[in-house]
Amino acid sequence: MLEQVKAGHIGIDQALDKLRHLPFEDLGFANVDHHRQIRQGFPEVIFCPGKTTEQIIAIFESLAARGNNVLATRATVEAFETLAATGKFPQARYEALARAIVLEQKSPPASKSVLPIVTAGTADLAVAMEAKVTAEIMGQRTELICDVGVAGLHRLLGHLPKLREANIVIVVAGMEGALASVVGGLVSGPVIAVPTSVGYGASFQGLSALLTMLNSCASGVTTVNIDNGFSAAVTATLINRRIDGVA
Amino acid sequence: MLEQVKAGHIGIDQALDKLRHLPFEDLGFANVDHHRQIRQGFPEVIFCPGKTTEQIIAIFESLAARGNNVLATRATVEAFETLAATGKFPQARYEALARAIVLEQKSPPASKSVLPIVTAGTADLAVAMEAKVTAEIMGQRTELICDVGVAGLHRLLGHLPKLREANIVIVVAGMEGALASVVGGLVSGPVIAVPTSVGYGASFQGLSALLTMLNSCASGVTTVNIDNGFSAAVTATLINRRIDGVA
Amino acid sequence: MLEQVKAGHIGIDQALDKLRHLPFEDLGFANVDHHRQIRQGFPEVIFCPGKTTEQIIAIFESLAARGNNVLATRATVEAFETLAATGKFPQARYEALARAIVLEQKSPPASKSVLPIVTAGTADLAVAMEAKVTAEIMGQRTELICDVGVAGLHRLLGHLPKLREANIVIVVAGMEGALASVVGGLVSGPVIAVPTSVGYGASFQGLSALLTMLNSCASGVTTVNIDNGFSAAVTATLINRRIDGVA
Amino acid sequence: MLEQVKAGHIGIDQALDKLRHLPFEDLGFANVDHHRQIRQGFPEVIFCPGKTTEQIIAIFESLAARGNNVLATRATVEAFETLAATGKFPQARYEALARAIVLEQKSPPASKSVLPIVTAGTADLAVAMEAKVTAEIMGQRTELICDVGVAGLHRLLGHLPKLREANIVIVVAGMEGALASVVGGLVSGPVIAVPTSVGYGASFQGLSALLTMLNSCASGVTTVNIDNGFSAAVTATLINRRIDGVA
Amino acid sequence: MLEQVKAGHIGIDQALDKLRHLPFEDLGFANVDHHRQIRQGFPEVIFCPGKTTEQIIAIFESLAARGNNVLATRATVEAFETLAATGKFPQARYEALARAIVLEQKSPPASKSVLPIVTAGTADLAVAMEAKVTAEIMGQRTELICDVGVAGLHRLLGHLPKLREANIVIVVAGMEGALASVVGGLVSGPVIAVPTSVGYGASFQGLSALLTMLNSCASGVTTVNIDNGFSAAVTATLINRRIDGVA
Amino acid sequence: MLEQVKAGHIGIDQALDKLRHLPFEDLGFANVDHHRQIRQGFPEVIFCPGKTTEQIIAIFESLAARGNNVLATRATVEAFETLAATGKFPQARYEALARAIVLEQKSPPASKSVLPIVTAGTADLAVAMEAKVTAEIMGQRTELICDVGVAGLHRLLGHLPKLREANIVIVVAGMEGALASVVGGLVSGPVIAVPTSVGYGASFQGLSALLTMLNSCASGVTTVNIDNGFSAAVTATLINRRIDGVA
Amino acid sequence: MLEQVKAGHIGIDQALDKLRHLPFEDLGFANVDHHRQIRQGFPEVIFCPGKTTEQIIAIFESLAARGNNVLATRATVEAFETLAATGKFPQARYEALARAIVLEQKSPPASKSVLPIVTAGTADLAVAMEAKVTAEIMGQRTELICDVGVAGLHRLLGHLPKLREANIVIVVAGMEGALASVVGGLVSGPVIAVPTSVGYGASFQGLSALLTMLNSCASGVTTVNIDNGFSAAVTATLINRRIDGVA
Amino acid sequence: MLEQVKAGHIGIDQALDKLRHLPFEDLGFANVDHHRQIRQGFPEVIFCPGKTTEQIIAIFESLAARGNNVLATRATVEAFETLAATGKFPQARYEALARAIVLEQKSPPASKSVLPIVTAGTADLAVAMEAKVTAEIMGQRTELICDVGVAGLHRLLGHLPKLREANIVIVVAGMEGALASVVGGLVSGPVIAVPTSVGYGASFQGLSALLTMLNSCASGVTTVNIDNGFSAAVTATLINRRIDGVA
Repeated sequence: MLEQVKAGHIGIDQALDKLRHLPFEDLGFANVDHHRQIRQGFPEVIFCPGKTTEQIIAIFESLAARGNNVLATRATVEAFETLAATGKFPQARYEALARAIVLEQKSPPASKSVLPIVTAGTADLAVAMEAKVTAEIMGQRTELICDVGVAGLHRLLGHLPKLREANIVIVVAGMEGALASVVGGLVSGPVIAVPTSVGYGASFQGLSALLTMLNSCASGVTTVNIDNGFSAAVTATLINRRIDGVA
Repeated sequence: MLEQVKAGHIGIDQALDKLRHLPFEDLGFANVDHHRQIRQGFPEVIFCPGKTTEQIIAIFESLAARGNNVLATRATVEAFETLAATGKFPQARYEALARAIVLEQKSPPASKSVLPIVTAGTADLAVAMEAKVTAEIMGQRTELICDVGVAGLHRLLGHLPKLREANIVIVVAGMEGALASVVGGLVSGPVIAVPTSVGYGASFQGLSALLTMLNSCASGVTTVNIDNGFSAAVTATLINRRIDGVA
Repeated sequence: MLEQVKAGHIGIDQALDKLRHLPFEDLGFANVDHHRQIRQGFPEVIFCPGKTTEQIIAIFESLAARGNNVLATRATVEAFETLAATGKFPQARYEALARAIVLEQKSPPASKSVLPIVTAGTADLAVAMEAKVTAEIMGQRTELICDVGVAGLHRLLGHLPKLREANIVIVVAGMEGALASVVGGLVSGPVIAVPTSVGYGASFQGLSALLTMLNSCASGVTTVNIDNGFSAAVTATLINRRIDGVA
Repeated sequence: MLEQVKAGHIGIDQALDKLRHLPFEDLGFANVDHHRQIRQGFPEVIFCPGKTTEQIIAIFESLAARGNNVLATRATVEAFETLAATGKFPQARYEALARAIVLEQKSPPASKSVLPIVTAGTADLAVAMEAKVTAEIMGQRTELICDVGVAGLHRLLGHLPKLREANIVIVVAGMEGALASVVGGLVSGPVIAVPTSVGYGASFQGLSALLTMLNSCASGVTTVNIDNGFSAAVTATLINRRIDGVA
Repeated sequence: MLEQVKAGHIGIDQALDKLRHLPFEDLGFANVDHHRQIRQGFPEVIFCPGKTTEQIIAIFESLAARGNNVLATRATVEAFETLAATGKFPQARYEALARAIVLEQKSPPASKSVLPIVTAGTADLAVAMEAKVTAEIMGQRTELICDVGVAGLHRLLGHLPKLREANIVIVVAGMEGALASVVGGLVSGPVIAVPTSVGYGASFQGLSALLTMLNSCASGVTTVNIDNGFSAAVTATLINRRIDGVA
Repeated sequence: MLEQVKAGHIGIDQALDKLRHLPFEDLGFANVDHHRQIRQGFPEVIFCPGKTTEQIIAIFESLAARGNNVLATRATVEAFETLAATGKFPQARYEALARAIVLEQKSPPASKSVLPIVTAGTADLAVAMEAKVTAEIMGQRTELICDVGVAGLHRLLGHLPKLREANIVIVVAGMEGALASVVGGLVSGPVIAVPTSVGYGASFQGLSALLTMLNSCASGVTTVNIDNGFSAAVTATLINRRIDGVA
Repeated sequence: MLEQVKAGHIGIDQALDKLRHLPFEDLGFANVDHHRQIRQGFPEVIFCPGKTTEQIIAIFESLAARGNNVLATRATVEAFETLAATGKFPQARYEALARAIVLEQKSPPASKSVLPIVTAGTADLAVAMEAKVTAEIMGQRTELICDVGVAGLHRLLGHLPKLREANIVIVVAGMEGALASVVGGLVSGPVIAVPTSVGYGASFQGLSALLTMLNSCASGVTTVNIDNGFSAAVTATLINRRIDGVA
Repeated sequence: MLEQVKAGHIGIDQALDKLRHLPFEDLGFANVDHHRQIRQGFPEVIFCPGKTTEQIIAIFESLAARGNNVLATRATVEAFETLAATGKFPQARYEALARAIVLEQKSPPASKSVLPIVTAGTADLAVAMEAKVTAEIMGQRTELICDVGVAGLHRLLGHLPKLREANIVIVVAGMEGALASVVGGLVSGPVIAVPTSVGYGASFQGLSALLTMLNSCASGVTTVNIDNGFSAAVTATLINRRIDGVA
């Protein structure tokens, strides 16, 4: 369509009309965006905090009805159990560490490269798992490398070849968040840094790690929100797909 | 009275004496302000946090006794149930999403225009409902437009005519709060922006959305406190009444 | 046009096409938005900080060429002198206290009501003057009430009738910013609060006054950015025009 | 003793020796300071948060054993009940609103003047009650003036004579905390301002009110910590005693 | 007058009328408050930042014309020189360290007690001098005790008798601001703590000292704004006058 | 080399030895890293703030001597003039808007795709130019799209096809920074968001835009440090090279 | 080994190879670092927050299996009870105040000097106990000096000889944290300051004490994270061992 | 003396009397502490900011008169030139990078070990030089290792043997400050971390590096104030002297 657009001014208007008429379903409390799977190649994701269980289930149903994959992040186990009790989604599963409900109805083609997800400590695992679940439902092959923080650099060095081979690396770290800079200095590709809210008092619920990552002196490091493994995984996938030539 | 005041200096003193003698009822822990309905055209509103249920009920009784409408915001369902159990206010209802107790004893005349209350996401609904309940008890006709955040602009565009027709628009958004600027750029009237505490870590309980809204580059955007749907609704009502010529 | 839009779905598209085709002039470093005068009834305003004098003059010329009124805010006197030295804008004047360049080529009709602009102290005058100049170029009749902060309430009381007569009041205050709440409690209409960066250390360049105003317990108070007299004036004008029935 | 000190250098040393040898009882986890009642005329006060109930009771016993008055602030009702269940302090009472345990074993002489404790809202009552209980155990006669915030100034004006008659006034306010400045402008004596953590989001648990009070443009306003009714009461008592000539 | 007020309700109104009719002179940009000398026993003080030199001189003239003492704080030496060049105030002097212009036209009676003003370091001297100049123009006898910070407690101990003899002590400290707590623990009277903006990076322009003082565990410590020696001196004077029986 | 490493454990050690022995030149105050051009395909970049002009020139010489391209960011025009006065780098040029010194001694192959750099306002141009200069010295073809902030969305819509065609988009915005989210919602690829320090008071030197971007609800948005156009350009280049198959 | 390294360049590589090959056990979610006891002379410490009880026990087992001492900090009593219920670690004990699980399988030689751990108040005891337990498992002889805050300096003075005799002192304080500066001024050796999250509102969960300690004007004071008694104890031990000549 | 003290209670008093009588010279604006050289083995250091040049010179003279070494930190070159122009201190020199005036009149014995001072970048050099000058005037042999930040770890690895040989290491880093954690993980001794104010916007003048260092997951890292090279050097010297057995 974009090729057509480039041919003349009228085309832009038509493209925008299509944009405006794209199907979304208005549930009153939510506008479910069914064309997103087409537009960005992945399903609508339900960010659960602040939504009632009833709302979550209604949105889930609306999405699942089209045969798409569905991902509900930051879901409580209670929300999953209520959803499961409806009996409508026998394939849905709960990823406890990632706090995610996953319904895979389609298998996207596997990525050519492996996406490493590296954590500084064990306590960063929940955020790393959110990234892993998100990336995998969009077809990425991932490898989790856990507890290799900078206080024991030798633990990281053995993984270096894998990190250097990857197109892009996700680094998940709380406390001082220094791992992102260290990895950024050791690899030649981009690094997506995810600060976590893990730490003692002056970590200020992730602010310390966030600032560390934003101030990284290593080239190619960009940052997402605190604890936002989801966003890191989506961005990494978007990039890897372009490198794989599938987007 | 103000006309009289302008006629001479003595008049100011008399006006102020009246002000000073306006009836309020001293409950010891609260000064219930019965003339407020006259002064601003709406009932005293009970902001419940920090008050005991006993205090809430006592203030509620004092206000209701005069036949006014009463609104208790941020009320727990327990407070409502205790109030209901007194059997004194059979007409009082609990608006669960808005967390408000509403007692309508008088019907204000309906507003000439419709007040749109727009939310970026479903999780902003509680704050939007507080605004809606507040505006309606003061006679505003409202329309809730939910989940039209900037990540999917096409969801907003279909509602544009309604927004442009309104005198004033309330925009409720958490996370990055960008919807207020976008709406402000699309309509020609004023926008009241309500930041919400919805979001990941670096939203810092609404600080991110608050700063976004305060820094809006769109003309006509003013901001209220985080999650303060009530204040947005009161201000919008005050403005609409002046436009309607009833204040 | 909006009336036409409401008649059918096609109309929305046509309206949006028009929106997209509205004339703006691309100067490379700036997109000058000539239809804004039509859309919101006031000229493009040039926010000078961060722009070179050359850029300011180029944008100024582009806007003035259409016969519109032009307002350049936060302009240095040097920028004005360079502009004046071009000899192209003999009517342009520099408002020193407001730090604004003003070119009035058209006279908007005068507002029906007077817009009071109230300051807590003399040091808030620069911000108040920015509001005053902005409101006046859009046709508002204004009255400046200066240095009536809450530490000497009797200075405010004499102005009360004027404040109560107004549709809307702008309150400009630094330090603790309490004047907005006090005025909000004394008038029945909306108040637009402008925090200023005036104060001792813990005012933190206006943060203290900003928080005070956002937390106002008075009904009808909304807040704009620190020192943003411009935004307060635009919003007040938008509201007053609607009340006057001219927008 | 200080008079003696002024007579010669040796005297200082002797005075300091006495200071160093003042009786305190080392409980291992606490140094109970029995001479404080003599030094400042009031009992050791137990600040309960962070102490176990066992520690609280042990300190309480140590203090009560000397016949002093004892005040335990921020005490839970559970702590009081455990203390009461020991049967050792039949005179001890729990002030629920103030969250304080009070044991009065001596009656200090009543103050000559009345100390007004003024609150902006009903939700500030807990902090005001902590101030009231503290001041009273040190002999102050107090008067609580509740819910007279700046949004309804007329509620405050009726109390003005009492406030002006007092030597010093305590003002307790959350949200925007503007009441301290307004009272400071209306009375000629000092005002001790107590910010409270009451409010919507951008009150940031009392930060807004704290900054307001620190930035007060009214003369004679000093500030204590957020929610620290205790400290305000102690300071007011110290001042009133000097005015009464009893310290 | 307050005695009369207590006799009946009418009296309140009359008192308030008087309040409202108190003479202030409206200079357009400032409301000069001539009755303040009567109300609080000290002259209007001009806080210079944010005022033009012309405004400062105009207010200065208005105040001086009544024969009052005048104090202009935070005045630049340039402002003083321009004022002096008018030749109208031959008695005015510039206190360089305090950055204050002082015009003494009346001598208030000397205070009975001496007010100690204590600084932690030499760099706190400017703020301490502002307090000293302010207190002295209101009749306080003061003693400056400089550079006795907690890193060398022995320097403080020699001054202890003087501090204990005082009714109230002003403590001025930057960096960690610990001196206020230490003095507060050593004296039995109230302490007014003034944080200063002196320090290395993490002093954050006085925030560190401010928080230290607000969190003081010593009884009787209240705090004013960062660098606000003026406010500390006014409050101390108000208290000392009441103890002296002259207010 | 990495391929060799994967063949056995010994290989890792040898690879690391090589890493350790990579040539860098120790200038005493700086370790100039000559292999970086090989490792990441771009020259050492000199971040000038905090370095003396002498240090900048010495590092510049060390880098230029190897025939590499050199980029000095945040350079003052004085630093450039001193460098130019040495007569050693006749090809070096100063990019005034970007505040960068550029020495191109080699031409990298041009990128296959065009990298759009979009700004919200004219005042964001300096940061955007830093990104543009950086990307171009590394071979990227760029297109600057300036002043298309969200307050006038129609200015952005015409550029949509170009943005959608790109692999990745850089968005530069100050004030509320909402443009990143809006672009992120309109394109399907990743967006690198650069907050700028442009804005009124409550932008807090870029904090507002930074938080907005971190909290973006649009998928695929990652963020770099405030005003860090350099980092955005490096990351975008790393990604585009991988997509082009040249890294 | 370091002696060998100094003999020639090859030695560095060999040393680093050894570093890289040091035994750690990959549990999937954690890399257990068994050579740390050799490298720094103390066991791996498990920081429990953010780890599941299953993870804690698995790491605990891995560490205990080698005969090392094990310390689990910030452990809940529930975690200890589950661990104890496995029956595998009959020697493990729970230090309730310190919230630590301790397994001593080896006795390190006792330190030559005593390490004083001083607290300002009783509520700082939990953090002080974490320091004490940590230091003792590494062989330090400790002495706890509790509740000697600056509000009652005489309580501290009696302990001065012990503090001056120590090589290094740990000071644990919340609220205003002034004790670190006072101790730092009284002793001649280094002081490690531990801010705690104890206090009223404006302590901001330890921020106030942290800033106080960072800004200490006393020489030799360094600071660790809020509530981080563990880190203070490790650092003090590292220093004392060097002084004792055992590291 | 401390040995004597331990023999009996009287001894404490005598020791404290001596403390109180230690010679300090009261210059009015400063208490010059001549016994500090004896107490802590180094001269009084003049922290220049906030002091007038006259005050600096007067304190300098008072200290130099006793034959001690004198160090004035954060001194402007103008202050040094005025001091030099007095002709009284021909041996005084100005360390431009460190911004320090140094007068060495005595040579302390050289330390047994070398103190490494490591910086992440060239821009951290000023702070590192302040540490170096401070440590050397107290007899430490130092080695500056500059520009070995974590973005190029190989630059650090070559210096590892020297770092491991040291008793203690000072790490100076701005931006993300990660170098402290990395060094802390590679050496077995304590690390003193000095955050610097070097960096882009979100370094917030050193806050980012400060938080990173406070949150370090490496054992043995303690932190001093932003840019406080002086304090790091004093602490390192205190520790090294104890290890050398000379304190």
